[in-house]
Amino acid sequence: MGIGIDLGGTTIKGGIVSSQGDILEECFKMTESHRGYASVLDDLTDLINCLLELAPEEMVVGIGIPGILSQDGSTVLSCPNLEWKNVALKKDLEARLTVKVLLVNDATAACIAESAFGSLGGKANAMMITLGTGVGGGLILNHKIITGAHGVASEVGHMVMGKNFYSCECGKNGCLETFASATALVRYCDMRLKQGVRSSLEKAKMMDAKFIVNEAKSGDALALEAIDRLAEYLGMAISNISDLVDPEIYAIGGGLSYSGEFLLEKISLATKKYLTYPDFATPEIVLARFRNEAGIIGAANLVNYI
Amino acid sequence: MGIGIDLGGTTIKGGIVSSQGDILEECFKMTESHRGYASVLDDLTDLINCLLELAPEEMVVGIGIPGILSQDGSTVLSCPNLEWKNVALKKDLEARLTVKVLLVNDATAACIAESAFGSLGGKANAMMITLGTGVGGGLILNHKIITGAHGVASEVGHMVMGKNFYSCECGKNGCLETFASATALVRYCDMRLKQGVRSSLEKAKMMDAKFIVNEAKSGDALALEAIDRLAEYLGMAISNISDLVDPEIYAIGGGLSYSGEFLLEKISLATKKYLTYPDFATPEIVLARFRNEAGIIGAANLVNYI
Repeated sequence: MGIGIDLGGTTIKGGIVSSQGDILEECFKMTESHRGYASVLDDLTDLINCLLELAPEEMVVGIGIPGILSQDGSTVLSCPNLEWKNVALKKDLEARLTVKVLLVNDATAACIAESAFGSLGGKANAMMITLGTGVGGGLILNHKIITGAHGVASEVGHMVMGKNFYSCECGKNGCLETFASATALVRYCDMRLKQGVRSSLEKAKMMDAKFIVNEAKSGDALALEAIDRLAEYLGMAISNISDLVDPEIYAIGGGLSYSGEFLLEKISLATKKYLTYPDFATPEIVLARFRNEAGIIGAANLVNYI
Repeated sequence: MGIGIDLGGTTIKGGIVSSQGDILEECFKMTESHRGYASVLDDLTDLINCLLELAPEEMVVGIGIPGILSQDGSTVLSCPNLEWKNVALKKDLEARLTVKVLLVNDATAACIAESAFGSLGGKANAMMITLGTGVGGGLILNHKIITGAHGVASEVGHMVMGKNFYSCECGKNGCLETFASATALVRYCDMRLKQGVRSSLEKAKMMDAKFIVNEAKSGDALALEAIDRLAEYLGMAISNISDLVDPEIYAIGGGLSYSGEFLLEKISLATKKYLTYPDFATPEIVLARFRNEAGIIGAANLVNYI
């Protein structure tokens, strides 16, 4: 049993999570990052104290952060959504609270939730890949989360997969997330429409990934081309990850995972093309189970994965 | 202190290795793989018994294998050099010996040697990449070797890095080892010479990687182009590995590492171009320390890394 906090750009969500993975109590606050770090720190402290009052026993607090943590997990090195740089969040919170605080990257928190209670089924070696605005990841090897020497492990969205027609926000060209995110889908279709390709996507008032997936399911050639391209690059990335750390299972989460089996099948087929040892080392690829609650559940279970 | 065996395609080398990493006693035998598995098993047993007689205390035997092991480290799934498939080497040897036997992939053994006594300096998160006929790797995270769910982790030579003008022996196109091995260097220069490019390489009686490196050092444009291309792809691969597992340090070993600082500098420059967080997460890239003795020293220390 533990307390998990999901610190997002718009909302701070917190919950008491049972040892079966159920959220027993839940609290919310708006994330008022424009008021500065000290203000968000106050709100976090209030929300955690509120949950601690409801908690039946002493518990550790885990906090999922949409940013990069220092190797020792004490400092938020960079968190663009909150405009934080080098803030000593663990120390600052522990000075205001009576409990131990642990920090984790939000995609890694989601990976823990899937491992502990969801689609990754507690396997020793497992990876979660989230396909949303960008591409994120969480990696578990030998039952422990991998955070790396500088805290930047599992940033799979920036693996360079080839040349692309537009560059990544990180400044590089060819990052996986410029091929395999919701943003990438929209930009690719936009580009092809501008080239004069005829498609049912032309009728879109505001094109988004969900619309593209639905049109692909209805058989539109351009939408299918875009989804196939995404699956191809993701399959290549998954096989490269397997060459390096050989997970037993991958969970696909994030907004695009709503596309369900339709997308999953294409990803699995593409992965098989690139695997080095398909005969005896094919990983399982499944859809993530948790959605919005993944951050809370994962952060609450962080203590078991470090 | 331990016994390490390096089971190669031509020689079986074994040694007693001190806790300082020195080889105190050494034994050799030809690898007569043409006589079949049982015969090599006999030779291995004799060689180990010979070393055990010389050993001052009881010790574990580690064996480095140029092939793929099962996830539990008991079975050699595939070892093309010895024409072995699915042999229960651990069980078969332990039935003939009085000591515990551990198996490890040979590139991982080299990585352990570098970590325990060489260039990787015992860092918690470290990777060794060997550039030879192919490209191999060994990965240490949280002080333990990473072998994966199916025993095929750290096979970095088969990460797909782009399209290439020739396909890999594994059947895929674009594997790192078709861009960044000694073989890749030779094939690339051959291809460019056939295209009519003028170069001092034309004077070679039998072109090999060492000759190409030497001509590059002397300023030959084609040789330099080939080495720069190798460094570019290896730098991209290293940055992709850093995105996934974020090692603190990489050691470059294998035949091509004889090129020394000349090659290392080019690899480091290329890596920096692709790193996602060069400001605070740049890994160190160094030359491996051990050469032929890496397998024995690493295998003898395997017990400390599992």
